[in-house]
Amino acid sequence: MIKTDILIIGAGPTGLFTVFEAGLLKLKTHLIDALPEPGGQCSEIYPKKPIYDIPAYPEILAGDLVDRLMEQIKPFEPGFTLGERAETLEKQDDGSFIVTTNKGTKHHAPVVVIAGGLGSFEPRKPLISNIADYEDNGVVYMIKDPEVYRDKKVVIAGGGDSALDWAIYLADVASEVALVHRRNEFRGALDSVEKASELAKIGKIQLYTEAEVKEIHGEDQLKAVVIKHNDEAKGQTYLETDYFIPLFGLSPKLGPIGNWGLEIEKNAIKVNNAKDYQTNIPGVFAIGDVNTYPGKLKLILSGFHEAAVMCQYAYQIINPDKRFVMKYTTVGGVQGFDGSKKEAKKEVVQSIV
Amino acid sequence: MIKTDILIIGAGPTGLFTVFEAGLLKLKTHLIDALPEPGGQCSEIYPKKPIYDIPAYPEILAGDLVDRLMEQIKPFEPGFTLGERAETLEKQDDGSFIVTTNKGTKHHAPVVVIAGGLGSFEPRKPLISNIADYEDNGVVYMIKDPEVYRDKKVVIAGGGDSALDWAIYLADVASEVALVHRRNEFRGALDSVEKASELAKIGKIQLYTEAEVKEIHGEDQLKAVVIKHNDEAKGQTYLETDYFIPLFGLSPKLGPIGNWGLEIEKNAIKVNNAKDYQTNIPGVFAIGDVNTYPGKLKLILSGFHEAAVMCQYAYQIINPDKRFVMKYTTVGGVQGFDGSKKEAKKEVVQSIV
Ligand SMILES: Cc1cc2nc3c(=O)[nH]c(=O)nc-3n(C[C@H](O)[C@H](O)[C@H](O)COP(=O)(O)OP(=O)(O)OC[C@H]3O[C@@H](n4cnc5c(N)ncnc54)[C@H](O)[C@@H]3O)c2cc1C
Ligand SMILES: Cc1cc2nc3c(=O)[nH]c(=O)nc-3n(C[C@H](O)[C@H](O)[C@H](O)COP(=O)(O)OP(=O)(O)OC[C@H]3O[C@@H](n4cnc5c(N)ncnc54)[C@H](O)[C@@H]3O)c2cc1C
Repeated sequence: MIKTDILIIGAGPTGLFTVFEAGLLKLKTHLIDALPEPGGQCSEIYPKKPIYDIPAYPEILAGDLVDRLMEQIKPFEPGFTLGERAETLEKQDDGSFIVTTNKGTKHHAPVVVIAGGLGSFEPRKPLISNIADYEDNGVVYMIKDPEVYRDKKVVIAGGGDSALDWAIYLADVASEVALVHRRNEFRGALDSVEKASELAKIGKIQLYTEAEVKEIHGEDQLKAVVIKHNDEAKGQTYLETDYFIPLFGLSPKLGPIGNWGLEIEKNAIKVNNAKDYQTNIPGVFAIGDVNTYPGKLKLILSGFHEAAVMCQYAYQIINPDKRFVMKYTTVGGVQGFDGSKKEAKKEVVQSIV
Repeated sequence: MIKTDILIIGAGPTGLFTVFEAGLLKLKTHLIDALPEPGGQCSEIYPKKPIYDIPAYPEILAGDLVDRLMEQIKPFEPGFTLGERAETLEKQDDGSFIVTTNKGTKHHAPVVVIAGGLGSFEPRKPLISNIADYEDNGVVYMIKDPEVYRDKKVVIAGGGDSALDWAIYLADVASEVALVHRRNEFRGALDSVEKASELAKIGKIQLYTEAEVKEIHGEDQLKAVVIKHNDEAKGQTYLETDYFIPLFGLSPKLGPIGNWGLEIEKNAIKVNNAKDYQTNIPGVFAIGDVNTYPGKLKLILSGFHEAAVMCQYAYQIINPDKRFVMKYTTVGGVQGFDGSKKEAKKEVVQSIV
């Protein structure tokens, strides 16, 4: 059982910044995310695109924003349960909560914050009847640790940035990389398209375009895929492989959170924005893109504010008898749980002559 | 008469970011501030100190934060009335407002946003009975354009960062610089204290410590000051000068805004935080440190969120018949009023072979 003060569901920008605001109040945090990496939409959908409305950043790549947030929260040593979806929420007699993931990992905390964005990112799967039988046995929808594929044969399917980027990356890791795409054209960042093109020319990526993986074979473990070409004259290709990795994008689904008894409106969780961003379940807050209230803006900067406000109220739930006096970080500094301390240089008081 | 869409009172971080959010909605802005420079508390009180809780900035100097905001809002060409205090607010028959400063400058806008922080920064003045007679005639409390002092004689009073920094700066500009301080010790950043010390040693700054300016003389225009030494044996020094610049710090006063008929609580303006941060006067909003509501945090990041929300409602007041569909800056880019355009590189769609 993982224990923490504030359990955060969703490690997008809002969830990440919550770690910092909680840390200033000396509260420990743990994050659960269905994705293998933190960053939410910024990491999954547009890591290489610039955002222009983060205050005081005239321009910042979404991926860099996530890196900066990770650096900012590091002193507070948040825990992470990644690649798992929060599945159930159970209120305990003492008012605390147990949250269990789809893989059975249990988390216990007095306060739960849902920072789930548009929902947990779930892979779009190809329509192959027996694909579920091979999930975790050779069929993979998200790459967590690329070293798993060292000296293995992999077949990647897809025509966007993820498919391109992983085909490029694994070309140097795997023993064979095949890239299968329904169309002839790929859609991605210019440099990715160019790089993949080079690697295809020198044979480091086997390219199958205007083609689709239609069958998968093997006993318990995946052994081969069958690629069907649009051009009937070309027929089918039988390809032995260790892994089949369809990268057709992830789409967010509110999913299990929808069944937790929370008031839902337009696929988002209603909260009390006049006060603390608490939901109809006391002790459960919802912040960032996942919540809704009159005038709600689904902006990153709003998630930051909601996190700061919400943590003050979480503090009161966790420490009903203490009073916390907020100190500006400039004045009080930042004391990490890792023993680090940042603080402004003190003014000197000194005679000049 | 200066005309604009949203008139912003206060050019602190909140007021500055309002320019950006308004600009995204194609609304023009103009800012009034009592200080000669934008930046509010960040510029006036702690420009050289690090802030640690600006989201995605593990550390940023307050002065740099202001610079970044100025860079971010530049494409929207905000107007500035600096060094003037907004004195009166008059509602017009058509619902718009005229705001007049203490220097008589008039501003006309359909929406007024008060981002006045702790109030307009007013100088702390030395206790010299006839000092008011020389204000604008040799006595100056805030330095706007240092070139005014080229080849002039100046007497600066004070023992903090402003007094030190301006004495150092003007040592290369003015013909003579005297620095007068009640005590022997100065309080400031280490490098300022050291630099001032060097300049005093080589005679570029005349230092009078444990001493105070007690009299000022001249006809209409200031001619001389009388410095009284704590050590009675030293008596008095009569010093001819063109300018006397007491830099004893500025203290914020809600001031005239308190008489505009706004609901005030604990020296702050009550707003509807459940919706739009509007005050009890329709069309007048209050955001940032100047407002209050249950759970209010006087944090820079909260001012940013309040600005974003408030601008959406200002848009509806200004354009009652239009609907604005918010587009992410990443997707829609940023079109400046200066003709500039920033946008994410488009993905390419290209065949690889
Ligand atoms: C193309 C694009 C451009 C954008 N441009 C801008 C912009 O310019 N400016 C701006 O402010 N915003 C922009 N946005 C919106 C911005 O990305 C979101 O507002 C922001 O990501 C919301 O952050 P969040 O942390 O609330 O949620 P998210 O980033 O959505 O993160 C939520 C996380 O929660 C996880 N999760 C949800 N449910 C569960 C569960 N049950 N179990 C485990 N994990 C779960 C998800 O997997 C996800 O990682 C853009 C969005 C897109 C798609
Ligand atoms: C030492 C110190 C350290 C701090 N550290 C932090 C920190 O670590 N993190 C954090 O988030 N915050 C911190 N703060 C607080 C932060 O500076 C404020 O929250 C922020 O400045 C508020 O911004 P604002 O734009 O709302 O108001 P302000 O910065 O106060 O700006 C308001 C401006 O309005 C002007 N004004 C007011 N009335 C009038 C009028 N009638 N006419 C003309 N002009 C007027 C004033 O002159 C002023 O320039 C700190 C503050 C101090 C003093």
